[in-house]
Amino acid sequence: MPVKSYAAPSAVSPLAPFNFERRDVGVNDVQIDILYCGVCHSDLHQARDEWGGSIFPMVPGHEIVGRVLKVGAGVKNFKVGDLAGVGCFVDSCRTCPNCQAGLQQYCDFGMTGTYNAYERNSKIPTYGGYSTQIVVNEDYTLKVSDKLALEGVGPLLCAGITTYSPLRYTGVGKGHKVGVVGLGGLGHMGVKFAASFGAEVTMLSTSASKEADAKKLGAHNFALTTDPNKMKSLRNHFDFILNTISAPHEYSAYLNLLKTNGTMMVVGVPPRPSEVPSFDLIMNRRSIVGSLIGGIPETQEMLDYCAQHNIVSDVEVIDMPYINEAYERMLKNDVKYRFVIDLASLK
Amino acid sequence: MPVKSYAAPSAVSPLAPFNFERRDVGVNDVQIDILYCGVCHSDLHQARDEWGGSIFPMVPGHEIVGRVLKVGAGVKNFKVGDLAGVGCFVDSCRTCPNCQAGLQQYCDFGMTGTYNAYERNSKIPTYGGYSTQIVVNEDYTLKVSDKLALEGVGPLLCAGITTYSPLRYTGVGKGHKVGVVGLGGLGHMGVKFAASFGAEVTMLSTSASKEADAKKLGAHNFALTTDPNKMKSLRNHFDFILNTISAPHEYSAYLNLLKTNGTMMVVGVPPRPSEVPSFDLIMNRRSIVGSLIGGIPETQEMLDYCAQHNIVSDVEVIDMPYINEAYERMLKNDVKYRFVIDLASLK
Repeated sequence: MPVKSYAAPSAVSPLAPFNFERRDVGVNDVQIDILYCGVCHSDLHQARDEWGGSIFPMVPGHEIVGRVLKVGAGVKNFKVGDLAGVGCFVDSCRTCPNCQAGLQQYCDFGMTGTYNAYERNSKIPTYGGYSTQIVVNEDYTLKVSDKLALEGVGPLLCAGITTYSPLRYTGVGKGHKVGVVGLGGLGHMGVKFAASFGAEVTMLSTSASKEADAKKLGAHNFALTTDPNKMKSLRNHFDFILNTISAPHEYSAYLNLLKTNGTMMVVGVPPRPSEVPSFDLIMNRRSIVGSLIGGIPETQEMLDYCAQHNIVSDVEVIDMPYINEAYERMLKNDVKYRFVIDLASLK
Repeated sequence: MPVKSYAAPSAVSPLAPFNFERRDVGVNDVQIDILYCGVCHSDLHQARDEWGGSIFPMVPGHEIVGRVLKVGAGVKNFKVGDLAGVGCFVDSCRTCPNCQAGLQQYCDFGMTGTYNAYERNSKIPTYGGYSTQIVVNEDYTLKVSDKLALEGVGPLLCAGITTYSPLRYTGVGKGHKVGVVGLGGLGHMGVKFAASFGAEVTMLSTSASKEADAKKLGAHNFALTTDPNKMKSLRNHFDFILNTISAPHEYSAYLNLLKTNGTMMVVGVPPRPSEVPSFDLIMNRRSIVGSLIGGIPETQEMLDYCAQHNIVSDVEVIDMPYINEAYERMLKNDVKYRFVIDLASLK
């Protein structure tokens, strides 16, 4: 079926209108009328081929929410009119130990990205959520509650699960002191989740201007990381640190804030490796653990948790043609905290 | 009381005979006639002031076993004639949360090193086990079984606990695939413990000549890390890797051998930071955890475990005057796997 979208024609061209055909709705497929799609920083990285290997034309977008338009004959969990969501991947091998464990993001053969990839065992490119409709196998489609403000739900599918998953994996909860580094799309969700799980949350930031916002989001404390006395006073202080920074940085300053058996979670992918002095790990038996988005079952769990606790992303809703300007503002961190495209503007 | 020893007079002089006085036996002290003392690579680092801040003259040695000669009036757990051990530290603050938790190695105010330190709240230097006797508070003295070959017990107090502790902390056991990197003083104990805990152990080494030895120590498999095909075949293979390397190295090649949720333990302190691409952690939710020796309760647990399972270090017993030559051989990794000084040679 014909679909309208915005696509990057090449790594050096701005995004522009692009019409293409979605596949027909297969027996296990769900066709979704896209209502909102969040704008992730990785959209920009890939549209500009900053990670290499980009496939053009590219229709970005992996924070998709919408309403089911049509279902295949074999679909069990969705019916026409339901709200539905699609995150960072639309398929995986389904048979490797990671897929079997519901950790499709770690599929041994690679997950199938929602865009900038090829459909499984096919040469057909996947196109993302900067478009009016998408067709996805129901096993990779999430159920979305109608209790939440829908424009804030899209970013849960990437920024939300990326922070929810490591906080759950490490068992963050009541009685824990948690530091969150970086107040952007990921960090603002990290603050919300950690506070919601009962932890005492401290925003760690280089910018004093973030204090008021961090507290509004649920942070109990704020620490200016450029203040050496403050940093010294927080040595051996935190049980956990959620490090959401994607810019190049060293881990040492943050590791030293962890108490005995403390863990730093890393979810950002800086463009070059970070230096780790083993001494900082060895002293106080500190850990670093990485985490990538989340599997389908945990993403559903997160969406259900958000519906129950009224958690959404703080967003700035934009029209589709604004996307190139939004990218420029994103580069200046000029967004609180996620742009979300209202796809009505494309229909 | 007068004690004979070998000391480094300065960072650039060979070790030489040195006579000094130990403190009198206090009410909670144990006086130990030293029988054997292991030679740790950190003895050499500190004797040559390679980490800075060394205190001279320095009597190295923190892998001490001997027999109790005298006990203070308040000593409850030792009597004259008992075997006893002393490891890397002889005191700590006793009141901070780490000390209270039996993790004295992470004392918030710093443990008191067995040598190259000052006695707690004092200007009296601590002198280590390259000496005929030592006086130690009983709370920092370990009980040693008479079931084990005593010359192999000394290294358990540093090399042993350094590997035992992280293997226990991470829960290594039956059904786990464990890689051990580096076959030296630490690595050979890591192989013994991991195998004893029921894991399938693979020695990872740059040197094919280590295969036979590794298998003799209990390794089930051997992998040459310079063989790209072998390394490729081990991608996502291990539940745990025990990284004992102290030379500068990057973590990436080893991290990629870990399966989902796998953990690399680091116990070596390379002279410069290791680079960690966050991608290697984020993919498959891998962790790195550091670990430093072990606390008094766990060191005792380890010694008891070794007595029960007949585990000792593989050692080459030397006379005290051979120490300078032993250091030179240690620099060439020419020892299987620990030099141990027979203090009878100094009496």
